[in-house]
Amino acid sequence: MLAPKAREVVRCCRLLAGYSEEAGVTTRTFLSAPMRDVHAHLTAWMQRCGMTVSIDHAGNLRGVYAGSSPHAPRLFIGSHLDTVVHAGAFDGVLGVVLAVALVDALDGRRLPFRIEVVGFSDEEGVRFGVPFIGSRGLVGSVDDALLGRRDARGRSVSDAIRDYGLEPSRIGESQVIDEAIGYVEFHIEQGPTLDRLGLPLGIVDSIVGQSRLAVVFTGSANHAGTTPMNARRDALAGAAEWIGAIEAIASEVSGLVATVGRIEAIPGATNVIAGRCETSLDVRHSGDDVRAAAVARMLERARQIASRRHLDVRWDVCLDQPSTSMSPHLIATLERATARRGLPVHHMSSGAGHDAMVMAARMPAAMLFLRSPNGISHHPDETVLEDDVTAALNVGHELLELVARSGS
Amino acid sequence: MLAPKAREVVRCCRLLAGYSEEAGVTTRTFLSAPMRDVHAHLTAWMQRCGMTVSIDHAGNLRGVYAGSSPHAPRLFIGSHLDTVVHAGAFDGVLGVVLAVALVDALDGRRLPFRIEVVGFSDEEGVRFGVPFIGSRGLVGSVDDALLGRRDARGRSVSDAIRDYGLEPSRIGESQVIDEAIGYVEFHIEQGPTLDRLGLPLGIVDSIVGQSRLAVVFTGSANHAGTTPMNARRDALAGAAEWIGAIEAIASEVSGLVATVGRIEAIPGATNVIAGRCETSLDVRHSGDDVRAAAVARMLERARQIASRRHLDVRWDVCLDQPSTSMSPHLIATLERATARRGLPVHHMSSGAGHDAMVMAARMPAAMLFLRSPNGISHHPDETVLEDDVTAALNVGHELLELVARSGS
Repeated sequence: MLAPKAREVVRCCRLLAGYSEEAGVTTRTFLSAPMRDVHAHLTAWMQRCGMTVSIDHAGNLRGVYAGSSPHAPRLFIGSHLDTVVHAGAFDGVLGVVLAVALVDALDGRRLPFRIEVVGFSDEEGVRFGVPFIGSRGLVGSVDDALLGRRDARGRSVSDAIRDYGLEPSRIGESQVIDEAIGYVEFHIEQGPTLDRLGLPLGIVDSIVGQSRLAVVFTGSANHAGTTPMNARRDALAGAAEWIGAIEAIASEVSGLVATVGRIEAIPGATNVIAGRCETSLDVRHSGDDVRAAAVARMLERARQIASRRHLDVRWDVCLDQPSTSMSPHLIATLERATARRGLPVHHMSSGAGHDAMVMAARMPAAMLFLRSPNGISHHPDETVLEDDVTAALNVGHELLELVARSGS
Repeated sequence: MLAPKAREVVRCCRLLAGYSEEAGVTTRTFLSAPMRDVHAHLTAWMQRCGMTVSIDHAGNLRGVYAGSSPHAPRLFIGSHLDTVVHAGAFDGVLGVVLAVALVDALDGRRLPFRIEVVGFSDEEGVRFGVPFIGSRGLVGSVDDALLGRRDARGRSVSDAIRDYGLEPSRIGESQVIDEAIGYVEFHIEQGPTLDRLGLPLGIVDSIVGQSRLAVVFTGSANHAGTTPMNARRDALAGAAEWIGAIEAIASEVSGLVATVGRIEAIPGATNVIAGRCETSLDVRHSGDDVRAAAVARMLERARQIASRRHLDVRWDVCLDQPSTSMSPHLIATLERATARRGLPVHHMSSGAGHDAMVMAARMPAAMLFLRSPNGISHHPDETVLEDDVTAALNVGHELLELVARSGS
């Protein structure tokens, strides 16, 4: 019954991927022009399903499917509609489209609660360098600092909201005030774990905590031809040794990931020994203590390496975000729904941040991951299996039944 | 007798450092506006010494001090007048100023040979990305490819020559056609060797050969939070391991230097594993076989590291320049001159490329290094000791006497 809907979901995601700031690829940042087409397309479908649709002043697409009584509590289902640069077709969008398809599959039947489908305006943070503008609107944490941030062309978040025909001073109205049953998000895993295990779905228990640091080694720039090896204070060589140490530490601890993704050697010339090397460090683990201990070990190694090489090393902690637990009640409900549809139950943590992490501050939140074939994401090759979408629709449908029966 | 001249040389270099494209620092690229001031200042001094001065069509300052007979052979003494960005006051300029001071010290006395002092227009290659435009003019190796190269503002070498009031089509006239005694260059060491040994001067036996390569590791870009450590193909981690291997190999071989000075991780985001990492490799040694073997070992290690990490590695050889021997006859003359003035004789190779390397293709060439305090060069702190300049003037003066006596 839900297989044709799954086909429709995949087709819709591929169609929406065509709405892009750049022809031939998918790039759709916060309230950029192609977002209007996405809003228009989904609004039409939502309205066909009997939903009342609006765009709030944080730029979120919000469609309410009324319950059997006028003041029934709300269950939020959603994800984000913005993308990274040169994105795939499913990251974020899939969760919104799948939510609309779930409402569509109700075929007009009313439940004892309202369903609100949310398409968040920004989760990736590409345009303004900070993520979660959309979900921060729903939990009421958009502040003046955020509204004042500027994009590469000098437009602020407020400007962007105004440019889209919305009103930044009314952003408070997007906040969820009344009681909510919770927030459920369907999302591709964006990693290889489910694919490696041969599983279609994963129930997210927690979203891992993250540390982000900027680490700078300083030595002295010098001539690559005239400075003997033993007279060098090569900042890049020091950073390179440290990158090896980080990899070794992360590989020792189960579930820990650590990445140096950014590096700059200064002056950065072929024939000059680097006097300065700037790097980024990203460390994640579901256990905050484990993460903190790992970061401490990595910084201790940086100190040792710098000291032996007569370098200076300094760092700034840019982010120290604790891990977020998903709602045990919603996790149990997702587990029951999965089992009742005869699907394998697998629990996992999310290595990436998601809107569910922000929403968890305001209401019970849960996530269901769909397998990412080959673990590919943030890339045009990102995809999803239609059978896995069918499985997710089945779990979603069963979840609605279970919530309905629980008498919320 | 020569100590006051040394003071004048240092003062003159410091004065010329004020002629810069940027106030407060020294940056003077090929035929940039401040080069006119340098030419004017040195022309005036050269003329006071009785020299005939001209600017050739490669932009070189050339001053001829006549010999005792009209067709006496020429001894060239010179270095370059251009600088790196944010340079010191002595790299290049010192060799030209010191040459003028040597002629000045002759006080009108004529020798059985002509002395031609040359201030080359470009040795650093900053403006057009290729070095030695000046000395290539003298040896006749300026070709259309070089004349067509463009700077950051889109001006070609030909345009720059024309902008300066010269004529690129007449660049062939700058070539040295008649027989020459040789080329002698005084230059700061730009490295720490003489300073560490406590020696004022070093006689250069050879200019080391250089290999320059662009080496690229390719893995796959992926999410820093969702990709387990054992599922990564991290191009930056591979490059970092390789940088460590290069350092180890270079440190094992006496006289070998190897540098990775440039690195770029792509996409270069904190939360994305690098899918591609581009690096530069610079390897130098006075023995071409030793250098070739070292490069081969480094590339073999790159292959091993890439293979173990399931990365791809490729490279381009951008430069494979053999080492250049200085003239044994001029080396012996410099050695005698040094010893006769009671100064310690020290032989060494030059790790940096110099105009003498280009001139060696046309005539016997030799270089005398002056100690670089703390090995600092290509930096505003670059300096020279006045006593070392006195020593160099003494050796230069004695060299002129020896050449005069040898009956050239």
